Amino acid sequence: MKHIPEIDVYIRFCETDAAGHVNNTSYFIYMEEARTKFFEAIGFGRSERSNVDFIIASTQCDFLAQSYAGENLSISTSVAKVGYKSFMITHEIKTSDKGAIVALGTAVIVCFNFQAQETVSIPSGLRSVLEKCLAAV
Amino acid sequence: MKHIPEIDVYIRFCETDAAGHVNNTSYFIYMEEARTKFFEAIGFGRSERSNVDFIIASTQCDFLAQSYAGENLSISTSVAKVGYKSFMITHEIKTSDKGAIVALGTAVIVCFNFQAQETVSIPSGLRSVLEKCLAAV
Amino acid sequence: MKHIPEIDVYIRFCETDAAGHVNNTSYFIYMEEARTKFFEAIGFGRSERSNVDFIIASTQCDFLAQSYAGENLSISTSVAKVGYKSFMITHEIKTSDKGAIVALGTAVIVCFNFQAQETVSIPSGLRSVLEKCLAAV
Amino acid sequence: MKHIPEIDVYIRFCETDAAGHVNNTSYFIYMEEARTKFFEAIGFGRSERSNVDFIIASTQCDFLAQSYAGENLSISTSVAKVGYKSFMITHEIKTSDKGAIVALGTAVIVCFNFQAQETVSIPSGLRSVLEKCLAAV
Repeated sequence: MKHIPEIDVYIRFCETDAAGHVNNTSYFIYMEEARTKFFEAIGFGRSERSNVDFIIASTQCDFLAQSYAGENLSISTSVAKVGYKSFMITHEIKTSDKGAIVALGTAVIVCFNFQAQETVSIPSGLRSVLEKCLAAV
Repeated sequence: MKHIPEIDVYIRFCETDAAGHVNNTSYFIYMEEARTKFFEAIGFGRSERSNVDFIIASTQCDFLAQSYAGENLSISTSVAKVGYKSFMITHEIKTSDKGAIVALGTAVIVCFNFQAQETVSIPSGLRSVLEKCLAAV
Repeated sequence: MKHIPEIDVYIRFCETDAAGHVNNTSYFIYMEEARTKFFEAIGFGRSERSNVDFIIASTQCDFLAQSYAGENLSISTSVAKVGYKSFMITHEIKTSDKGAIVALGTAVIVCFNFQAQETVSIPSGLRSVLEKCLAAV
Repeated sequence: MKHIPEIDVYIRFCETDAAGHVNNTSYFIYMEEARTKFFEAIGFGRSERSNVDFIIASTQCDFLAQSYAGENLSISTSVAKVGYKSFMITHEIKTSDKGAIVALGTAVIVCFNFQAQETVSIPSGLRSVLEKCLAAV
């Protein structure tokens, strides 16, 4: 298994709001990018997922500090739980310069057959990789 | 206290993604609009909040069904908990035509003094209104 | 032909930026919504466009005044030119309360066959409607 | 003068739409990032602009090809015109792998005093740098 990347995100001006800081909705954009790159890193990127795709069942973010336009954020991704049809990943969002924690998020991903529009069990190949990630935490 | 509005949101094409449905990050945009209008309805809109402002501590959304460009969503807002410095509101997002539940979300809001950059207790006037909303659920 | 609607858009907090006003990118979101509703009004909404679809070739916006979170904007749409494969529409964005012009935008739309991934001529039914709109300006 | 960077942008899934490609509004987000980094590269980043700030007067984008989630785009920025109070910059957006042109954009930036809320002439230091960039094209 390839190393799971800690991604670096540059904060765009349009991702802030009139309170002067990054808007809460922008953190979910950053977490989506981290998630996408995590799936690519473990060999289950969008182009590699054939009959089984992913759909997001739930996502959550705790905002611990503010961040600002022009700053860089580092986002790490871990596997927290592996269930029958779904798994949970967590994200830690820090400032790239000082490593101060800005936000902590989670996402519950369900395996989904878009043709049939129904949830399916985690395929064994993916389960094996997710369980290795889980053990690595 | 004015009636708490159930807001109606039109789904824009740019709020969907290449999976063909509304992107998960868009629901947080919709919930932010519902929150803003809820605060206005209870007399604590942005222009009415003088020394005490709000900051979001946490938000979460469960995605129960997909929604699509051009559809309308109805979002209701309720007060779920009132603490010392923070309170929790919940949102129910339904399709406007059939009333099918699409997503359920929450947000924890903390009273915050932006000048001092510190959390403060809920002012008594706001507490009184929030407790009435809580009782109304 | 149905009346072409002047749409009303509520400015969300997340559509502003740390300069305190609506971010330039948000006006393109508003214009996309106006465009979508214009196409629906003339009978060529997304669900009504069968083999011929639209793709945007160019868009532009002049920013004449600033606008702010919580304000409402009114956006009118007109047909400015009808070519062989493409047509140009214009948008006037005003504040809903005072009617002050905030921005003026245009979009050039090309008829496009997504299956074949090629531009096609404007179908006669659509051309007829667009020319009526053009005459109405 | 520092070298003007060609920035690299990763296309996020939420920046696409249900047509399967990058939504038109996303290109304006990418151009804003290129602009911000261009201003930093020439020594007029947000933190370095004291009494004279920038406001965007107009922006435009021609869409020449489609781009897709997970691709990387390279965006170069040039100075096209320098006026009395305003200047125009252009952006060329290419795919990072093949260098195929995806979009061409421009932005007209006006020097603006946010306290006084009025346009001002381009300060001589900035003018000097912009004219060097103009000559370099």
